[in-house]
Amino acid sequence: MTEAAVDTPFRAWWREQASAQRSEVARIPFAELDGWGFEPHGGNLVHASGKFFTVEGLRIEPDDGREARQPIIHQPEIGVLGILVKEFDGVVHCLMQAKMEPGNLNTVQLSPTVQATRSNYLRVHRGGRTRYLEHFWGAGRGRVLVDVLQSEQGAWFWHKRNRNMIVQVDGDVPVHEAFRWVALPELLALLHSDNLVNMDARTVLGCLPRDLLPRQGRTGAFAAALRCSYETGADAGAARSWLLDVKSRGRWTTRLIPLNDTHGWIRKSDEISADDGSGFRIIAVRVRSRSREVPEWTQPLLAPRDEGLAAFLVRRAGGTLQVLVQARYEPGLLEHVELAPTVRTPPVTADEEVPYLKDVLSADHRNIRFDALLSEEGGRFHHALTRYQVIEVADGQTLEVGDNHRWMTIGQLMELVRHGHYLNIEARSLLACLHSLR
Amino acid sequence: MTEAAVDTPFRAWWREQASAQRSEVARIPFAELDGWGFEPHGGNLVHASGKFFTVEGLRIEPDDGREARQPIIHQPEIGVLGILVKEFDGVVHCLMQAKMEPGNLNTVQLSPTVQATRSNYLRVHRGGRTRYLEHFWGAGRGRVLVDVLQSEQGAWFWHKRNRNMIVQVDGDVPVHEAFRWVALPELLALLHSDNLVNMDARTVLGCLPRDLLPRQGRTGAFAAALRCSYETGADAGAARSWLLDVKSRGRWTTRLIPLNDTHGWIRKSDEISADDGSGFRIIAVRVRSRSREVPEWTQPLLAPRDEGLAAFLVRRAGGTLQVLVQARYEPGLLEHVELAPTVRTPPVTADEEVPYLKDVLSADHRNIRFDALLSEEGGRFHHALTRYQVIEVADGQTLEVGDNHRWMTIGQLMELVRHGHYLNIEARSLLACLHSLR
Repeated sequence: MTEAAVDTPFRAWWREQASAQRSEVARIPFAELDGWGFEPHGGNLVHASGKFFTVEGLRIEPDDGREARQPIIHQPEIGVLGILVKEFDGVVHCLMQAKMEPGNLNTVQLSPTVQATRSNYLRVHRGGRTRYLEHFWGAGRGRVLVDVLQSEQGAWFWHKRNRNMIVQVDGDVPVHEAFRWVALPELLALLHSDNLVNMDARTVLGCLPRDLLPRQGRTGAFAAALRCSYETGADAGAARSWLLDVKSRGRWTTRLIPLNDTHGWIRKSDEISADDGSGFRIIAVRVRSRSREVPEWTQPLLAPRDEGLAAFLVRRAGGTLQVLVQARYEPGLLEHVELAPTVRTPPVTADEEVPYLKDVLSADHRNIRFDALLSEEGGRFHHALTRYQVIEVADGQTLEVGDNHRWMTIGQLMELVRHGHYLNIEARSLLACLHSLR
Repeated sequence: MTEAAVDTPFRAWWREQASAQRSEVARIPFAELDGWGFEPHGGNLVHASGKFFTVEGLRIEPDDGREARQPIIHQPEIGVLGILVKEFDGVVHCLMQAKMEPGNLNTVQLSPTVQATRSNYLRVHRGGRTRYLEHFWGAGRGRVLVDVLQSEQGAWFWHKRNRNMIVQVDGDVPVHEAFRWVALPELLALLHSDNLVNMDARTVLGCLPRDLLPRQGRTGAFAAALRCSYETGADAGAARSWLLDVKSRGRWTTRLIPLNDTHGWIRKSDEISADDGSGFRIIAVRVRSRSREVPEWTQPLLAPRDEGLAAFLVRRAGGTLQVLVQARYEPGLLEHVELAPTVRTPPVTADEEVPYLKDVLSADHRNIRFDALLSEEGGRFHHALTRYQVIEVADGQTLEVGDNHRWMTIGQLMELVRHGHYLNIEARSLLACLHSLR
């Protein structure tokens, strides 16, 4: 879907921001990175300060003995992704930010109120420079509606988690340059625009509590079944047991190893890539920004080769919408297995079969309930685009459901997303997309 | 506390079992281990089959740069710890097992219905030999009341978790040799006996749902405040935010390394120990058992040097009991920090200060509400004894509460223990002990 043709105050503001924050991102050879370098022993790609992140190697030793190795991003810190909310005239609004990230296709995307690193919030009491962080950290923070540690891409990140927060305020809040209050219904509608709402905003929206969801809804049988699904299955016990069954069947060992030991991967002057051309590359970029604290910097990025796909198949059963959820292994996840979209490509390993892929790719366009091309974390990934879809199974079509998939209600997913290690990052994005269909 | 002098049918049965399952456990040099050996490259202690567990090295890189190294037990599998429950005459009973474990001081302790490894449950459909496992695994299992993945000792285990389950049945269940239905109130009372209820049973009892707890209670103001604490604070949101604050402040990197690289530790013919004599040793034993599937085997064990202490300080505030909980870092925990007893010794590092230790050690005996010497996992640890205590803060005494401690209600703890990564193993044991005081 492309941007709506209709102009709105938001769109006018957005054009201004995109123009004001124009920036340049250029590929460079690794040798031109400032402060970054390959460690003499082991070859990990690190920053001289010991801060930020490192690119290391990962060895995956599955039960069947087929070992795999790959580079992986390691950042043993918890960041805060926070959206500040406030009611105006009875409508929940979110304070959103137009934010430049070097890996974004269009550089500027719509971001949460704060995306703060550990060093940001540890200096919040000493006059930190991260706008609005005081609402999320420390004794003076606002009313916390959501506060949960959630995982990020397990194929690209080692044990990465961020703190997803929604905080409510009642008093006046100054609106700084590049920030804007966006009504929640409008924000959810913006999810339908390609590459606009960034991953950090989507994961927080995926944790929205029931009370905040807009009440006024769409008409029609699909929307009615969708809303019914929210009210169904608050007890997710059986689904949790199924997830534990899948986790328990595996014996997965994953270990960080020196980047030099990732056999099959080759380091050239400007990229690290696999012999077989699969997966992703590690590259380096120079960023020239008008708007960030630092006007120019260099950094490595992980660049996926292909566009990804994240799709939920849904069906109506007795007037309630059900979502076909996958219990999916990803090597960098702390808990190894989390709930994921019905279909997620690229697969973890190149030779992995992807059940239901045909059903998604061959879906009748009338059954595609949500469809947008959205970006993954632009601070770490270069042009990482994923097509997010919600597709209704055609009337009368029955799907065989294997051990690693299960029909669940949205009520069950919302119950589980209150805690970490249940819904993976793409499942949370899709949950936000489902909210936009109410 | 020592065993009650009063004889009961349970005690008579227990004496029989202890006698029938007599076994011998003897220290041996590593060279006499069968099937176990040190890998030529890196020196990890492994079994030739690739099964069971390994003893590897761990490197801890805290934010302050003071690196530490130690051996650690690694077993990348999820076991099932399950208690089968059934009502007899309106009273919940638990099917318990008298089970020998080589590391137990007294070898036989009271264990859950099943303690199953992955290879046990993966062969359950092919005529597995683990009694009662069919109630916990597969399509035919009973009504699942509790099913949650919980951590174990983060100082000794690398990322170890087990599946804690409580399953209810209504139909007849044959009672096999070494098993016995024990009424839940009696089982909770048995927690007061030294070295009787094993760690695996305690962690499952720590996950007991509210509905199963015995209703008839003790009299007196303390018991009333205790029961009130169960009904208070179902919303544990603020406590979760505090736990996330503590987690977020740290930047901890922990990595598995070859056992040979644990500088400061020395491998002798029959033990691996630290230069400074602190902490624990790795030893090897030969076991001769009358009752286990295999009559004789050898294995490594981790042997702590000193008795541990795990104590909750509690206080009455407005007629409700509150528990002083610690957010504690342990290097082998997946999430690094979990809720722990007010005081837990030994500390993670030898030079760590232990707040409230003096308050526990100097407590007036009239304020000691629970006190028993209980064993940690006898399948992996040798004579690992911990003194578990619940101590009421003396009337009028106020305690200063630091950033890493917080007063919580039992209702909040029970809300959090429904999910993994919140309460550590000793906190769950102590929660079971609190249940015994109702």
